[in-house]
Amino acid sequence: MEKVNLQDAFDAVKEPWSPRLAGELNGQAVKLARADGEFVWHHHDDADELFLVVDGRLRIEFRQAPDVTLEAGEFVVVPGGVDHRPVADAEDGAEILLFEPAGTSNTGDVDSELTAEPERLD
Amino acid sequence: MEKVNLQDAFDAVKEPWSPRLAGELNGQAVKLARADGEFVWHHHDDADELFLVVDGRLRIEFRQAPDVTLEAGEFVVVPGGVDHRPVADAEDGAEILLFEPAGTSNTGDVDSELTAEPERLD
Repeated sequence: MEKVNLQDAFDAVKEPWSPRLAGELNGQAVKLARADGEFVWHHHDDADELFLVVDGRLRIEFRQAPDVTLEAGEFVVVPGGVDHRPVADAEDGAEILLFEPAGTSNTGDVDSELTAEPERLD
Repeated sequence: MEKVNLQDAFDAVKEPWSPRLAGELNGQAVKLARADGEFVWHHHDDADELFLVVDGRLRIEFRQAPDVTLEAGEFVVVPGGVDHRPVADAEDGAEILLFEPAGTSNTGDVDSELTAEPERLD
């Protein structure tokens, strides 16, 4: 059983919007991502998704609900099927931890140049 | 979609070792607990359990592996079936976030005076 230090792990996450796999349990994945600027609008048909901001600030836009802005130490659960777009406006972007079913695509129903398979962190 | 601020939420967690429910997704629960002193040895037959320390320090003892000591911003996944005992020695204890299947008992296979159903945070 190896512990993960989030700050050390984020040091290895260079590319924005390209989640890295930091752990797996009960068929769920713990992913770490660097957010910078606007992501793409998308949804996940059958997967709820938790966003926890570890550093920085992340705004999550919804088509049919008010935006939610997360500061460090704040999380929100986006239910499956809900269109959303994460945006990190601040200069340094944001470091975010995601919990979601293993195998969930980062761009959900959308095929985008930002679609990426999560590589495992060393 | 309501965000959760971890520090605000922990302010409502008074009792040590009595997890409160802070979110649910994909059949999994996000629980917040205050750790203080020694918990009981136990395991969860069919549930992996993630411990993330938000504040303080938590040592997790294992019968057949070295202890893992988590500082704030560190997590570990304890696989199902593995006997473990969380211990928070520091004077102020520790604030921990748990991620595990909904319905997981805090004391696993053991019936203890510390066994507690998680109440939902307001």
